[in-house]
Amino acid sequence: MRMDVLTLFPEMFEGVFQSSILGKARDKGLVALNAINFREYAGNKHGMVDDTPYGGGGGMVLKPDPIFHAVEDLLGREGTESTGRAPRIILMCPQGETFTQRKAEELAQEEHLIFICGHYEGYDERIREHLVTDELSIGDYVLTGGEIPAMTVIDSVTRLLPGVLGNETSAVTDSFSTGLLEYPHYTRPVEFRGWKVPDILLSGHHANIELWRRREALRRTWLRRPDLLERLELSKDDMAWLKKLENEAEQ
Amino acid sequence: MRMDVLTLFPEMFEGVFQSSILGKARDKGLVALNAINFREYAGNKHGMVDDTPYGGGGGMVLKPDPIFHAVEDLLGREGTESTGRAPRIILMCPQGETFTQRKAEELAQEEHLIFICGHYEGYDERIREHLVTDELSIGDYVLTGGEIPAMTVIDSVTRLLPGVLGNETSAVTDSFSTGLLEYPHYTRPVEFRGWKVPDILLSGHHANIELWRRREALRRTWLRRPDLLERLELSKDDMAWLKKLENEAEQ
Repeated sequence: MRMDVLTLFPEMFEGVFQSSILGKARDKGLVALNAINFREYAGNKHGMVDDTPYGGGGGMVLKPDPIFHAVEDLLGREGTESTGRAPRIILMCPQGETFTQRKAEELAQEEHLIFICGHYEGYDERIREHLVTDELSIGDYVLTGGEIPAMTVIDSVTRLLPGVLGNETSAVTDSFSTGLLEYPHYTRPVEFRGWKVPDILLSGHHANIELWRRREALRRTWLRRPDLLERLELSKDDMAWLKKLENEAEQ
Repeated sequence: MRMDVLTLFPEMFEGVFQSSILGKARDKGLVALNAINFREYAGNKHGMVDDTPYGGGGGMVLKPDPIFHAVEDLLGREGTESTGRAPRIILMCPQGETFTQRKAEELAQEEHLIFICGHYEGYDERIREHLVTDELSIGDYVLTGGEIPAMTVIDSVTRLLPGVLGNETSAVTDSFSTGLLEYPHYTRPVEFRGWKVPDILLSGHHANIELWRRREALRRTWLRRPDLLERLELSKDDMAWLKKLENEAEQ
């Protein structure tokens, strides 16, 4: 898998691409990550990549030429080694589809992703209409640019690639993969400032512990994110437990 | 405003804290940003900050001691200069409240935010119950750690602080601030590879341009994020336009 990021701030990616899981996945050759400054494709001696909007108003708009040329240069470079599968060209923008774990799983099947990150300003509409294959937003909040959103997508996709996580099961037991928020975790010390670990976790009775964890995961999801429960297939025991929680809450 | 991040990967923040709006806001003294390695507070010679979970199962759990001590050290440091307002202590985790622009506006009113970033693993439940004031998630996808989510919150909060954005109006005209997705932007050239800028934007007729922009913002929001329209107060003209779009779609 190869992921290229077109940005005016490639230095923002250095620490992130070198650390932790992303750094290890790169070292193992499982993923190639590059941040490319599209100002190199400005095509004018001032390195100008934006201009004022037609129709007036404040702010600046990213010009189509530098971004088209940067993407085309990336596509040309792969040339001979291409397997014939077209890369996904992803515009990070607030107008995009909201990113989800399902989208991460979809993108993890690809061979090459190109991310376009704007900064402060809008994109010329012709980039959106004639160049990109996907528009993604990571949530309903305003950010300075597409850089942190691109890091978000890259991290979530990379950890789904085969061989990246040490334990193959780790990726699927996380929140949003099982569809439930995680149950409470405890580690040493057994008593910290008077607050003790629940007795059940010290009992050594694995079936009871599994049941407790399932029920606490259901409780937390029911309390905090009831919308997630609607999408799940629940067992009879799950449903009886949720009914009990509802009855208790009504009293 | 001061924002401290407790993390095992402080190097991930270097490029992000030094670039663009965050770098400028720091240089102007409008915000203090620090990434602190909480391994320094491990309290054992091996620097161990995690341990196996009580009750068994895979993965590791972050111990309570190092994180409590790191937060308490930060609180003690401010000591004399404290204005009496308690800092918000924010746990970045998938189980948290989903971050929104409204939450960013709320946090921008504070004087001191402390972010706790786990990595790979769970947090001991006692951190959640007895230390933190907020739990935040940036969206429904699985990430390797809380670092990129913390960057997301820090970026969105910083750009709301007075004096950070050059143009005071920039922050409020963005998507999610007006409640509508942005209208299409165009800049030079007027024709790019045969694709032209819409005539209306070249007309110089400001009232018509404003109307076109409002309607295109409504159209895009209606097509892509109809959920956003439900929360908005719409004018009669807005409603007539949406009705027209609906009628056209039905034909």
